[in-house]
Amino acid sequence: MRNIKITISYDGTNYSGTQKQKNALTIQEVLEKSLEKITNEKIKTIFAGRTDAGVHAKAQVVNFKTNSSIPVEKFPPALNSVLPKDIVVIGSEEVALEFHSRYDAKSKVYKYLILNTSFCLPFYRRYAYWVPEKLDLEKMEKAAIYFLGKKDFTYFCKKGSSVKNKICEIYNLKIKKNKDLIEIEIKANRFLYGMVRMIVGTLIEVGKNKIKPEEVKEILKGEKKVQNIAPPQGLYLIKVNY
Amino acid sequence: MRNIKITISYDGTNYSGTQKQKNALTIQEVLEKSLEKITNEKIKTIFAGRTDAGVHAKAQVVNFKTNSSIPVEKFPPALNSVLPKDIVVIGSEEVALEFHSRYDAKSKVYKYLILNTSFCLPFYRRYAYWVPEKLDLEKMEKAAIYFLGKKDFTYFCKKGSSVKNKICEIYNLKIKKNKDLIEIEIKANRFLYGMVRMIVGTLIEVGKNKIKPEEVKEILKGEKKVQNIAPPQGLYLIKVNY
Repeated sequence: MRNIKITISYDGTNYSGTQKQKNALTIQEVLEKSLEKITNEKIKTIFAGRTDAGVHAKAQVVNFKTNSSIPVEKFPPALNSVLPKDIVVIGSEEVALEFHSRYDAKSKVYKYLILNTSFCLPFYRRYAYWVPEKLDLEKMEKAAIYFLGKKDFTYFCKKGSSVKNKICEIYNLKIKKNKDLIEIEIKANRFLYGMVRMIVGTLIEVGKNKIKPEEVKEILKGEKKVQNIAPPQGLYLIKVNY
Repeated sequence: MRNIKITISYDGTNYSGTQKQKNALTIQEVLEKSLEKITNEKIKTIFAGRTDAGVHAKAQVVNFKTNSSIPVEKFPPALNSVLPKDIVVIGSEEVALEFHSRYDAKSKVYKYLILNTSFCLPFYRRYAYWVPEKLDLEKMEKAAIYFLGKKDFTYFCKKGSSVKNKICEIYNLKIKKNKDLIEIEIKANRFLYGMVRMIVGTLIEVGKNKIKPEEVKEILKGEKKVQNIAPPQGLYLIKVNY
């Protein structure tokens, strides 16, 4: 028995997220079917981060146990030959049997892309959130500071999460403008369900001057509510650190 | 009778290029049908630059004559309400009756995107050309210099072009690397059929060390042939200057 860790990149547009579920096509299901094809085993995969319908990954980490004799470096080409073109295996390594891609993750990095143009350029429809109002980046940067550090993110967690511990530590929250695109990168030890999209949605409200940067403090305490959850197509899981 | 100039952005993936033709869906046909819907007139459009199947435009310029009384600033919202989401009108203005979007163009700018990563990241499939071999940018920049200036581009024109004058003046050819992407931007007074893709294909051959930068001179003279035509999905018409 070996434990294989693979890194995958996917375009989430056509999937109902990562996690297997009935009556919906998910990244996990497609990946496990492809693993079955190449190994002739029923394989259970563990994803480092669960991503929602429409969310993308540049480098999601997945591990699985197998008795197959496929050399570890052959997993990417073998899987890519049977996977659809919107899921690509970009790396593989053999890891200790006890390695767990989710529990062992020390930090994760997500990126969110906002297209800030007066018209929605067609190439970005599936890959960014179009916001036509000019966003005030300085104010967004001021607001971003309130999210940094170890904090209770209870009010930045969507309903339906069974996770009890809502304490997360945000190490980094960078906002960059690159021509028409605003890129928000968030690094934290862990993320709650919907957390990045609720943080980004709130930053956008600040950028639109609908709320003040300081109001983030009140939202974190539950004195005010998150008004805007950014849609999934702008979100990318960029990196999982161990 | 008024002459209206509009600027459009499109994702060329699902179209057989701009120019109207039988048995194929083109940008021109879709745009003219949309114009007919909002004006109740049969309208003939003139495109500044013809783009091939799969080629995109960030800002293509189109003009047309109309007797409709629609205020000029209402063309973008009216057209966008009937156009498919992959064609977007991003600007409009009324111009002199003699204005001709193709003949009056002083220069055009094209951009070509190369994804230079060992695996093809799925988000770029329709929007860049994936080259897994690491490209030597320095050599590509050396080669680029040979294209600059007023030159005969006969050997950088695909067959099937009826244009007789093959002299073009390239003002600018910039190569930039931005993480995984290599961006090639070319500004010229005019472009021949397939010219950008043949230039980019040649630069890629240089970047792969298959040909030397100096060999561009021989290809321009027809002593050697263009070996590689870059595929359409990496190409964008960026700007038309008048």
